[in-house]
Amino acid sequence: MKNQSKKKRPTILVSNDDGIDAPGIYYLAQELKKIGDVIVVAPDEQRSAVGHAITMNYPLRLKKFCKNGKFFGYAVDGTPADCVKLAVRKVLKINPDLLVSGINHGSNTAINIIYSGTVSAATEGTILGIPSIAVSLTTYDKPDFRYAAKFSRQLASYILKRSIPKDMLLNVNIPHLKEKEIQGIRITRQGKSRWDDTFDVRRDPNNKEYFWLTGKLDVVDSSEETDLISIFQKYVSITPIHFDLTDYKALAEIKTWKLEKALQPKSRKK
Amino acid sequence: MKNQSKKKRPTILVSNDDGIDAPGIYYLAQELKKIGDVIVVAPDEQRSAVGHAITMNYPLRLKKFCKNGKFFGYAVDGTPADCVKLAVRKVLKINPDLLVSGINHGSNTAINIIYSGTVSAATEGTILGIPSIAVSLTTYDKPDFRYAAKFSRQLASYILKRSIPKDMLLNVNIPHLKEKEIQGIRITRQGKSRWDDTFDVRRDPNNKEYFWLTGKLDVVDSSEETDLISIFQKYVSITPIHFDLTDYKALAEIKTWKLEKALQPKSRKK
Repeated sequence: MKNQSKKKRPTILVSNDDGIDAPGIYYLAQELKKIGDVIVVAPDEQRSAVGHAITMNYPLRLKKFCKNGKFFGYAVDGTPADCVKLAVRKVLKINPDLLVSGINHGSNTAINIIYSGTVSAATEGTILGIPSIAVSLTTYDKPDFRYAAKFSRQLASYILKRSIPKDMLLNVNIPHLKEKEIQGIRITRQGKSRWDDTFDVRRDPNNKEYFWLTGKLDVVDSSEETDLISIFQKYVSITPIHFDLTDYKALAEIKTWKLEKALQPKSRKK
Repeated sequence: MKNQSKKKRPTILVSNDDGIDAPGIYYLAQELKKIGDVIVVAPDEQRSAVGHAITMNYPLRLKKFCKNGKFFGYAVDGTPADCVKLAVRKVLKINPDLLVSGINHGSNTAINIIYSGTVSAATEGTILGIPSIAVSLTTYDKPDFRYAAKFSRQLASYILKRSIPKDMLLNVNIPHLKEKEIQGIRITRQGKSRWDDTFDVRRDPNNKEYFWLTGKLDVVDSSEETDLISIFQKYVSITPIHFDLTDYKALAEIKTWKLEKALQPKSRKK
C-alpha cells in the first residue's frame, strides 16, 4: 500500500466503538490533528462487542456532532464498520491516507479481538485498502489517554512515511501507565484466552427471568510473544492481524480424511 | 476434541442467524433428529451480518418457541454468539457433542465470512470446546433446503465418529442444486473478494437524508482451491477456519522495522 506523498498534509480518518462522545476518540483526534487533516466518523453511541457487524436491514443516518461548541465530526446510528464504509464512500469520497480506530477504553487482546468493534473499524479500513490501526488503552478504571494518544500519533507518523503489508492491520494495546513506566514496544501475536462465561439470572417486576452475561477471562497461553502477556509486562503490544481465517494446518489434515469419497453426492457414486 | 461415546445418542445444539422461524433451521433440525437429540437455541428474529457480536449492555431473555403446534426450541433476543453461550451455560449446562449452525439462506464465503452470524455461532461453539459446523445454502432465490439438510446430517454423523483438530470449525457452503447436479466435495481455503459498496441515498418525509448500504461483490482470487470458486463450479465447499487472526508473515516483516527503537518511550531512551 502506497501512502501519502511527502508534500501534502495527510488525511486521517478516525473512528471507534465507544461512541463519538467518548474521551478516547477526542484525545486521539486532538493528537492526530498535529500531523494531518482529521475526519471523525463514529457511532452515535457505544457499540462495544459488536464484532464485525454491518447494517443492512435498516438505513443509516449521518449527523454533525459538536464538542465544546465546535464541529468535531459525524455521528452515525450504526456499527464501527458502517461508519468506515459511510466515511469513505459518502463523506471523503476517496480513501484517506490512514485510518486510526480508538482509543478504546479497555483492552482488545487475545480472544477479545474477535468481539471488538474497535478492531472491526480498522479491519473494514484494511478491506477498503486503507492502512489501518486499532488502538486500545488496557484499563477499565478512569482512563488517562495522554500517553496512548501521543503514541498513536507517533505510530501514525511512522506508518504514513512507509509502505505496510497489504491486507493487514495493526492492533495496538497500550498499558495504562505513565510513559516513563512503559518498558518498551513488542511486536506480538494474538494470545490465547477464553471466557469462563456465567449468566447472572434475575427476575423482572413481572417475575420473568432475564440473564446478564458476565464471566472471567482465563489466560491459556502465557508466552511473552503474546499481546496479553506483553501488556501484563508493561510493554506496548503491536499485533499484525488479517482476515484470512483459513486454518491451513487443519486444511492439510482434513484433506487426508477423504471426505469427498465418504460423503459423495449420489450422482457421483460409481 | 473427544466426541460422543458410541453407545449414547449424541446431543446436537442447533443455532443460526436467520432466526428460529426461518425454514433453514427447521430442515436442519428435522434431519439431525435422525441421528441425535437436538436442542435448538436461536435468535428470535433475523440477525444477519451481525459478525461476532455479543450482548453485554442489556440482558437476554429465553422463550419457548413452537412450530406447527409443537415445541421446537428456545428463542433468544440476542445474537447467534449469545444463543450459543446461553444454550451451553443455561439450557444444556454441559457441552453438547456437536454444534451445527444454519442452514443459512445465502452463501458465507470469502470476505463475507467475517460479517457472518452463522459462522459466528459455530466460532463461539469452537471457543467453548464443541466440535462445530456452519452450513450455508448459496442462493438468494426461494430455497430448497433438502439436499443441504441431508448433507449436513451426513457430515454431522461423520464428525461425531472422529476427533477433529482443536480450535477450528468447518464452514460449509452448499450449491443450490439437486443432489445429482453436485459435482463433488472440496476442502477449500477462504477466497478473496471485496465489496464495492455503494449507498443508496434517499430522503424521508421530513426531507432528511438516509443511506441504504448496497454494493456488488468483486472476486479477487479465482483459484479452484477457494470456497467461492468451488461453489461456482458446483462443488460443496468445506473450509476449516480458526480465530487466530495473527498475520504471521507480516509479523516477521514488521519485526525488521525496529519499531521498538523508533518509537521508544521516553524513559527507555539512553
